[in-house]
Amino acid sequence: MIANLLYWFELLAVAVFALTGAIVAAQNKMDPVAYVILAVVTGIGGGTIRDALLSTPAFWLSDPADLLMCAAVAIVVFVSRATFVELERNPGPWRVLPWADAIGLALFAVVGAERALVAGAHPISAIVLGTVTATFGGVVRDVFIGQTTLIVKREIYITAAMLAASVYVLIYYVLGNAVLAALLGFAAGFCLRAAAVLFKWTLPTVEGWKK
Amino acid sequence: MIANLLYWFELLAVAVFALTGAIVAAQNKMDPVAYVILAVVTGIGGGTIRDALLSTPAFWLSDPADLLMCAAVAIVVFVSRATFVELERNPGPWRVLPWADAIGLALFAVVGAERALVAGAHPISAIVLGTVTATFGGVVRDVFIGQTTLIVKREIYITAAMLAASVYVLIYYVLGNAVLAALLGFAAGFCLRAAAVLFKWTLPTVEGWKK
Amino acid sequence: MIANLLYWFELLAVAVFALTGAIVAAQNKMDPVAYVILAVVTGIGGGTIRDALLSTPAFWLSDPADLLMCAAVAIVVFVSRATFVELERNPGPWRVLPWADAIGLALFAVVGAERALVAGAHPISAIVLGTVTATFGGVVRDVFIGQTTLIVKREIYITAAMLAASVYVLIYYVLGNAVLAALLGFAAGFCLRAAAVLFKWTLPTVEGWKK
Repeated sequence: MIANLLYWFELLAVAVFALTGAIVAAQNKMDPVAYVILAVVTGIGGGTIRDALLSTPAFWLSDPADLLMCAAVAIVVFVSRATFVELERNPGPWRVLPWADAIGLALFAVVGAERALVAGAHPISAIVLGTVTATFGGVVRDVFIGQTTLIVKREIYITAAMLAASVYVLIYYVLGNAVLAALLGFAAGFCLRAAAVLFKWTLPTVEGWKK
Repeated sequence: MIANLLYWFELLAVAVFALTGAIVAAQNKMDPVAYVILAVVTGIGGGTIRDALLSTPAFWLSDPADLLMCAAVAIVVFVSRATFVELERNPGPWRVLPWADAIGLALFAVVGAERALVAGAHPISAIVLGTVTATFGGVVRDVFIGQTTLIVKREIYITAAMLAASVYVLIYYVLGNAVLAALLGFAAGFCLRAAAVLFKWTLPTVEGWKK
Repeated sequence: MIANLLYWFELLAVAVFALTGAIVAAQNKMDPVAYVILAVVTGIGGGTIRDALLSTPAFWLSDPADLLMCAAVAIVVFVSRATFVELERNPGPWRVLPWADAIGLALFAVVGAERALVAGAHPISAIVLGTVTATFGGVVRDVFIGQTTLIVKREIYITAAMLAASVYVLIYYVLGNAVLAALLGFAAGFCLRAAAVLFKWTLPTVEGWKK
């Protein structure tokens, strides 16, 4: 039942990431096919790169539920694009997207690290793979549309994914309890990202750290 | 014999895609090594990414025919670059490249979808892999030279690859005839792309679809 | 013992490539997390892509020594970034980085080609994989930060990697001596790159080759 719950949570995280891809398409006034491509790339890109690094077939090859979810999200956003662009520009009290994205980020980081450990990766490598799972979909999306990638921005985004994956791996190795590790990892990543969104925290640049 | 024919067709498609890569090098006045790299990346990039997603070794590892074809195309274009750049600028009655490219696009989409089905992928995932095979070589080429990728352009290009792969997979599942499916898939993708080139069809943007 | 020596040499080459990534972070005044990411991507990116093409798990999954080396380099550069940026701007008699980078380039090209041959690749494909191992870490770094990639520049860089891999494969097939092949391949690649740095050699563009 817990595996089943995780399946639905993961599908939800894919949907949220697909949503951020489709909204980028809406903001840039792209054609409907570009909505679908950006939703798919953002939604499943990170997990796909993780699978290539683990040398296992991409997770959506045998079960296309994630692909269909991305396409469905793209179509919904396309049909009601005026609403989505307006919401993004003027979020009012409803700023849902950053929160949903923070959930997806923390969830993907934990799931990616777990998959890597199951595949026999070293704990430190599993932290890297969790971070890749959570963030590389967004990086590929940005590269495809020629936008500055996450890596250059000072937002605490990749850092939050690293934290989620690190806490998961650490707790799992210290206490041996995967469920507790997943919950604490998720909580740590989500809280850090949420705090960054709420309080507009950014990482200091070189200047900020000047001696 | 049909497998043999397919081998030569695929080599031809690789050559055509390599040609588009080498011509980009000529247009940007690059050095000879860049001709070879862009020809190779464009020619075999899509199939290589497909193989990584399927978790099989890249198709050119054991048989370097495709690599050599790309290198040969790059050398021919480099030696007669003045002619190629002039032809691109002022194609006259010889506008061969877009037609050859349309053949390559439809062929790669069908071959990619077929490989994915053989590897046990779900039909919907096979359509995605066919599209990736046909288009990601060009996307990587554009990313490498810092040019706007196909995804942002409104050309009916990725759409034609999707159609070819979809028709192949659909006919194959409905009629169970791989050869007929390949022919119809190829024809559908080629005709849509050819029509887009001939009649300058583009996908409407958000504005075009405004309610 | 030779395998052991190679292990340490490879770790050194990873460190040198990580250094170039971290210095790019310093030059662009990025945050500390970006130092780590760029060091990791540049240090292990090429070998990781090689492994994906060979369809074997990424080489750092079971042994995180290379990951830790990249992180350590990133931290050292971050802590003493003022020195590194100054050294880059005004290298004086100490221009160490291009030489270290030339060593890494030639070493990675030879190691990549060797791994490909061991995995059963065709000699020509092994040359391509050696070149990919040596250069794609830097290409991905440049793509991630939105900078012009190596491919567009006329520097003799990719060419030197190609030469190192080609000499290794050729000597290995002609004489059957892997150690001699590795030494000569390394020497050829390093000397060409060193000459390019010393004498500011560049590849001619189309203009330069005009008939």
